[in-house]
Amino acid sequence: MARAFPGAYGLLDDAAVISPAAGNELVVKTDTIVASVDFPPETAPDLIARKALRVNLSDLAAKGARPRAYVLDLVLPRTVDEKWIAEFADGLKHDQAEYGVHLIGGDLSSTPGPLTIGVCALGEAPIGRIVRRGGARPDDIIFVTGTIGDAALGLDALQGAFAGLDDDSRRFLLDRYRLPQPRVALGPELIGLATAAIDVSDGLIADLRHICDVSRVDAIVEARSVPLSPAARKVIAADPRRFASALTGGDDYEVLFTAPPDAAERISELARSAVTPIAPIGRITRSLQEDASRVLVLDDAGRAVPLTVEGWTHFGRRSL
Amino acid sequence: MARAFPGAYGLLDDAAVISPAAGNELVVKTDTIVASVDFPPETAPDLIARKALRVNLSDLAAKGARPRAYVLDLVLPRTVDEKWIAEFADGLKHDQAEYGVHLIGGDLSSTPGPLTIGVCALGEAPIGRIVRRGGARPDDIIFVTGTIGDAALGLDALQGAFAGLDDDSRRFLLDRYRLPQPRVALGPELIGLATAAIDVSDGLIADLRHICDVSRVDAIVEARSVPLSPAARKVIAADPRRFASALTGGDDYEVLFTAPPDAAERISELARSAVTPIAPIGRITRSLQEDASRVLVLDDAGRAVPLTVEGWTHFGRRSL
Repeated sequence: MARAFPGAYGLLDDAAVISPAAGNELVVKTDTIVASVDFPPETAPDLIARKALRVNLSDLAAKGARPRAYVLDLVLPRTVDEKWIAEFADGLKHDQAEYGVHLIGGDLSSTPGPLTIGVCALGEAPIGRIVRRGGARPDDIIFVTGTIGDAALGLDALQGAFAGLDDDSRRFLLDRYRLPQPRVALGPELIGLATAAIDVSDGLIADLRHICDVSRVDAIVEARSVPLSPAARKVIAADPRRFASALTGGDDYEVLFTAPPDAAERISELARSAVTPIAPIGRITRSLQEDASRVLVLDDAGRAVPLTVEGWTHFGRRSL
Repeated sequence: MARAFPGAYGLLDDAAVISPAAGNELVVKTDTIVASVDFPPETAPDLIARKALRVNLSDLAAKGARPRAYVLDLVLPRTVDEKWIAEFADGLKHDQAEYGVHLIGGDLSSTPGPLTIGVCALGEAPIGRIVRRGGARPDDIIFVTGTIGDAALGLDALQGAFAGLDDDSRRFLLDRYRLPQPRVALGPELIGLATAAIDVSDGLIADLRHICDVSRVDAIVEARSVPLSPAARKVIAADPRRFASALTGGDDYEVLFTAPPDAAERISELARSAVTPIAPIGRITRSLQEDASRVLVLDDAGRAVPLTVEGWTHFGRRSL
């Protein structure tokens, strides 16, 4: 798998080498997923592999970086057998071809605990130009790609919810949970266009709050503008409380970004050319408090939608 | 901790950026350590942190790379508390200052299993010049830095062996197991000098075999030339069978390298200038079999020293 990348030395050496193209710098992102925490342990090995890779490609995309390579830390319980490894490798191979990335190194360890997979992804972007969290300004429009909440509702479905839902809708939601679709093609187009960006992994509202925290601004989201899939609309129509889960549930791996109002037309063109749905969902506003940012979701009557949980955090850390 | 490295963005963003200096390329190495597998779970947090970082710096050194930065994947059981985290961070801070490396990103996950720490280290080296595994040629001399076997004997001591050993020697061996001393200063000096190199982590013989496998050569090691510490000499004098453990035990984190005979004088000078002990321990020879490399350890009478276990492998994979 590493043949196509000379610096990987066929994975026969102790380290790999990589250089950014002229005028570019390397963009580095690492993420680890753990069985029973980040995915159900019975998930098919190829899907685990692809998810481990894709969650990192999603971060690179949100920063405007083009993915090039990755290293893999595979920490395996002794229950894993050769068939599992072969299927896992097939998943990687599939996504390497799909996204044009190369495995250039890794490490294999054993554990008495759950399967744990670390991926450190290396992308590249023009020097000094990646899209940061901190550039959102008052009056910027907030945009998000694709649809929001499918993955969180998919996890609910996996755990037995939505008994009355039709099979196609159920399958759609499950697929959205199991296999993220990182916005790799769109990512590099955001450079020079977006003022701030993040991928939606903790949940739409939590990740918008991450942008607001670093940018020192507030945000208002219009509830009816949040893009929902037909399947999510069905679930929410049957139980309106699920709308809050969609906004806060996480695992969407869409790109949330801000841009000044005069960029709206270029963004419409970009959505067409990159064949990526992009929806405006709200506005950045001036920060009302010095030390805390605020994200409000307003319904059609201008009332705040109550959100009890704002997003996924490890160890109860308040990242919000 | 990330303040000194602009591309880390104060760890407030989703990815970091890094560029190699002009004429250089980035060298990437990843390694994960797991509690109860790679270190005793009761190890002090600062020592765990430093070991996790140092095992990667050791690989970079063996390739001739100068370390620059790293990303950290910390997978924590719920038993870990704030005091533990603070001590762990102190360990990282210490080694960052010692080796001039910067934390530029990371990920925090929870696990129902053991503490698991992944480090991906980024170094740099002149383009196309890192020291590979595959360059050893017949008649090259085999060199190793420092002393061999201390860490393996230290682990034995930790598990209760060597009841009659004096306290100083015991402490020395334990320290060698607990805290690797990667040959970071020496590393870049090997470029243009060593024909092949590897760090000794699986065990002297296993790692020499890794070089021989890729270089398609055999090797002969003179048993009496293998550098041993006074403490290791005491243990082996009391029980000569421990010599085999020293050769195969692993965790030395010394640099094993090969160089042509006419480089011997430059290597002596290098040992003096880098204040690094470097010992010649044997010779590379022509491969006797097409598909398998052979590493022989000979005693003073020219007899092969029997080695039942050649080195550490995960899952019983034959990496030898």
